[in-house]
This record gives sequence, C-alpha cells and structure tokens, in this order.
Amino acid sequence: MPAQFTYRRRVQFAETDMAGIVHFSYFYRYMEETEHEFFRSVGLSMMAVQPDGSVIGWPRVRASCVFEAPAFYDDLLDIDLIVLRRGVKSLSLRFDFRKQGQRIAHGEVKTVCCSCPPGRPFFSIEIPEAYQQVLVEGQPSPE
Amino acid sequence: MPAQFTYRRRVQFAETDMAGIVHFSYFYRYMEETEHEFFRSVGLSMMAVQPDGSVIGWPRVRASCVFEAPAFYDDLLDIDLIVLRRGVKSLSLRFDFRKQGQRIAHGEVKTVCCSCPPGRPFFSIEIPEAYQQVLVEGQPSPE
Amino acid sequence: MPAQFTYRRRVQFAETDMAGIVHFSYFYRYMEETEHEFFRSVGLSMMAVQPDGSVIGWPRVRASCVFEAPAFYDDLLDIDLIVLRRGVKSLSLRFDFRKQGQRIAHGEVKTVCCSCPPGRPFFSIEIPEAYQQVLVEGQPSPE
Amino acid sequence: MPAQFTYRRRVQFAETDMAGIVHFSYFYRYMEETEHEFFRSVGLSMMAVQPDGSVIGWPRVRASCVFEAPAFYDDLLDIDLIVLRRGVKSLSLRFDFRKQGQRIAHGEVKTVCCSCPPGRPFFSIEIPEAYQQVLVEGQPSPE
Repeated sequence: MPAQFTYRRRVQFAETDMAGIVHFSYFYRYMEETEHEFFRSVGLSMMAVQPDGSVIGWPRVRASCVFEAPAFYDDLLDIDLIVLRRGVKSLSLRFDFRKQGQRIAHGEVKTVCCSCPPGRPFFSIEIPEAYQQVLVEGQPSPE
Repeated sequence: MPAQFTYRRRVQFAETDMAGIVHFSYFYRYMEETEHEFFRSVGLSMMAVQPDGSVIGWPRVRASCVFEAPAFYDDLLDIDLIVLRRGVKSLSLRFDFRKQGQRIAHGEVKTVCCSCPPGRPFFSIEIPEAYQQVLVEGQPSPE
Repeated sequence: MPAQFTYRRRVQFAETDMAGIVHFSYFYRYMEETEHEFFRSVGLSMMAVQPDGSVIGWPRVRASCVFEAPAFYDDLLDIDLIVLRRGVKSLSLRFDFRKQGQRIAHGEVKTVCCSCPPGRPFFSIEIPEAYQQVLVEGQPSPE
Repeated sequence: MPAQFTYRRRVQFAETDMAGIVHFSYFYRYMEETEHEFFRSVGLSMMAVQPDGSVIGWPRVRASCVFEAPAFYDDLLDIDLIVLRRGVKSLSLRFDFRKQGQRIAHGEVKTVCCSCPPGRPFFSIEIPEAYQQVLVEGQPSPE
C-alpha cells in the first residue's frame, strides 16, 4: 500500500442543499467512494463475487464525520485514506477531506468483512489474504 | 383498484438543492414511492420473494416527468397514480403531482415485470394474476 | 417537549443497495428527517426565514452512527429523538432506531445554530428563545 | 463546441439498489453531471453568480430516459451529450449512455435559462451570449 491514497472528487450540483452547501450525508458517500477507489487501485473489489456465488462484502459497523468548513458546488475535494486499524475481521479507515490544501472535514468508518450468500443473511469472516496485504496500518494525520 | 390512488409526501431538506427547490431527480423517486405504496395498499409487494428464492421485480423501461412549478422544502405533495396501460408483461403508470390542489408536475413510468433469480440476470415474465387484478386501466387526468 | 419524540419511517426501495440492505448513508438522512419532524411537531421550522431575508439554519458539526443490524426494504423504522445537550449556540441530539421494538442503530448529531444571510457566509448565533423552550435535555436511553 | 462531448462516469456502490443494478433515478443525475461537465469544459458554470448577487440557473422543464440494459456497480459509463435544440430561452439536450461501446440508455432534458435573485422567485431570461456560442445544434445519434 502506498503511504497515502488520495481520491479527488468534484462536488456535484445534486449534492448541494437549499443552504447552498453539500448536504452532510454526502460526506459518508465520499468516504465510501474513496475506500472503493483505493481497493480498485490495487486490483481488488469491494463486492467480490466468489466461485460459489456468494459475495465478500463490507457492511459498516460505525461511521462518523466532523465538519470543519462547508463544501460547495464545483469544489474539487481531495480525500486522503489512512488505515487506522486492521483487525482479523474488521477494518477501520480514516478520511481527511481537503479543499485547496485546507482540511474541511475528517471521518472514520469501521467495517466488518462478511460473506453474503445469495438470498441469505451475511456473516462475518476473516479478511482474505489479498486484502490484508494492502491494508497496512498507517500514521493517522495529526488532529 | 380504487378509481384513484393518492400518496401524500412531505418534501425533505436533503431533497432540495442550492437553487432552493427540490432537485428534479427526486420526482422520479416520488413516483416510485407512490407506485410501491399503491401496491402495498392492496397487500402486494414490488419485490416479492418467490418459493424458489427468485424475486418478482419491476425494472424500468422508460420514465419521464414534466416540471410545471417548483416544489420546496416542507411542501406536502399529493401524488395521484393512474394506470395508463396494463400489457401482458409491462405496465405504464401516470403520476400527477399536486400542491394545495395545484398541479406542479406530472410523469409517466413504464416497467416490465421480471423474474430475478438470485445471482443471475433477470428476464421478463407475464404479470402475475394477483397484480393484474388491481391494475385496471383508468382515465388519465386531463392534460 | 414530550419526554420522547418518535418518528416512524418506511424504508424505500431506492434507499437499498446491491447488498440488499439500506445504504448506511441514509441513516443520517433518517436522523435529519426525525429532527425536522420534531421541530415541525412543535410549530418550528429548521429553515426559518427571518424578516430581513436571512434564514436561521442548523449546519452540522459532527454526526456519527452505530449500525447494529441491517434495515431492509419495506421495514418500518421507529426513530426516537433525545436532546443530549443544549448549549448556547449548539445542540446535540441522539437518535435510536428501532424495528419491531429491537434497536438496530443509534446515532448522534451536533449542530450549530446559524444565521444564513442570502448570498453570504453563515455565522453562528445563540439559539432563539422559541427553540430553547422545546429543547430540554432528556435522559439518553441506556447504551 | 466539439462535435461531441463525452463524460466518463464510474458507477458507485451507493447508486445500486437491492435488485443489483443502478437505480433508475441516478441516470437523471448522470445526465446533469454530463451537462455541467460540458459547460465546465468550455469555462462556463451552470450556477453563475452575477454582479448583483443573482444567479443564472437552469431549472428543468422536462426530462425523460429510456433504459435499454442495466448498469452495474463498477461499470464505466460513457455519456455523450448532443445539443438537440437551442431556443431563445430554452435548451434541449440529448444523452446517450454507452458501456464498452454498447448503448444501454438514452435520455433528453429540456431546461430554461433563468435568473435567480437571492430569496425571490426565479424567472426565465434569454440565454446569455457566452452560453449561446457553445450551444450549436448537433446531429442527434440515430435512434
């Protein structure tokens, strides 16, 4: 894994609200997009279909975000992903949102690696080897 | 089927955009919610799991909407559903959006009834008898 | 304020994802809808236009959610709102999501009361008297 | 204007629904993103603030989409924009969605150019000269 992974995302019009800023619920989507793009960049999928038809998925256990400054339509956001903790079955990621170098928000998402058989409830599994290899606990950026 | 079915929907804050009005993409969701609430009101589901694990679903073939006046945060919208045409496998519904009695938009959605086996592509099927019975072609409201 | 405020919300089809469950980003919208419905129930608006054209708004400072069990299409969720803390300018609310009596998630949202003049940046203000009166710190439900 | 403008868009996880495909409401957002990216590519904004504080916006008059094949998580969509008609105050655009060269959907959006003064209703205006210059009616792709 690179020391840091950054995803650049343009704020879209539909993501703003009548207060003229990005609705806070979209920051959680931006974090997810960053996470998926990170795995995509190393050749892994967040919805990997297995030979038996089941899927390895990553449901969320908790997610939080701190909003320091608003984001606006057309803004280009740079979102850094840092691996906070890689457990046996769970994964905690941290995200820092920057706009022209200034941090405007930061968040954390904890997920559990799960097997999702078609039509049946999912259950937690150990993080597969291929995913473990790219998930190296990094240095969270200073608060 | 009743001569008309109306779904009342409160506009939520996150559905507005920086222009101060409901983003047009939500009108398609409002139409879908109305359709699902209609089927729910007669005891039918738009995602009915079958004994073999497959699901009867209704993917869209086309959808259109005409926007006559904006909707705002907090508005209470009344959305009328009318069955335009019930084919063997497809269904065309029309929706009229009213705000305090005044029409502000209207749209049409054409769907195809499909069987969706778990993990495999879906394919069109004849509309099941139970659904046919509640889908009586009505009089579209005057243009 | 009543000892507790509960908002009932039907999960909509568009709020699910390919894993078959409600996408986690919608829980933040459900919390906001609950908050807005609470204020609406006591005759107050979360976007109150003032005589000078400015708006009293409530941008978010932080929001978190813990997901204990998934929510599915068609589920009826009961969301309890509890006032955690009412500061001079800020407000912390807690939300408990229940499905048929069982808790499936809980979250917290901290907001700041702001004046939003048209076309200019918003700035924090003291929570107006009318809002203070209905914001009585309650007993958070047991963890 | 180039003879054709194409916007490439990755399908995100949150845009899928429990049927495993992109929810149809997102196609309207993809069309809007394509439109905004087109204007951005020629140095124009779809929310241009004027010296008097008003904004030139483009509310929708009608929008339609025909869905020919589903889009899935991770798909890379190529969306072509074609100017169907440029009126004095209105604009009709057509969008063709392709996936690996195969068309999967196409849609049309009609908008009206409006002046949106802060805090007051918007009203239609003539399309400004700078926008007219890049809006040359093209050849719609064959049906």
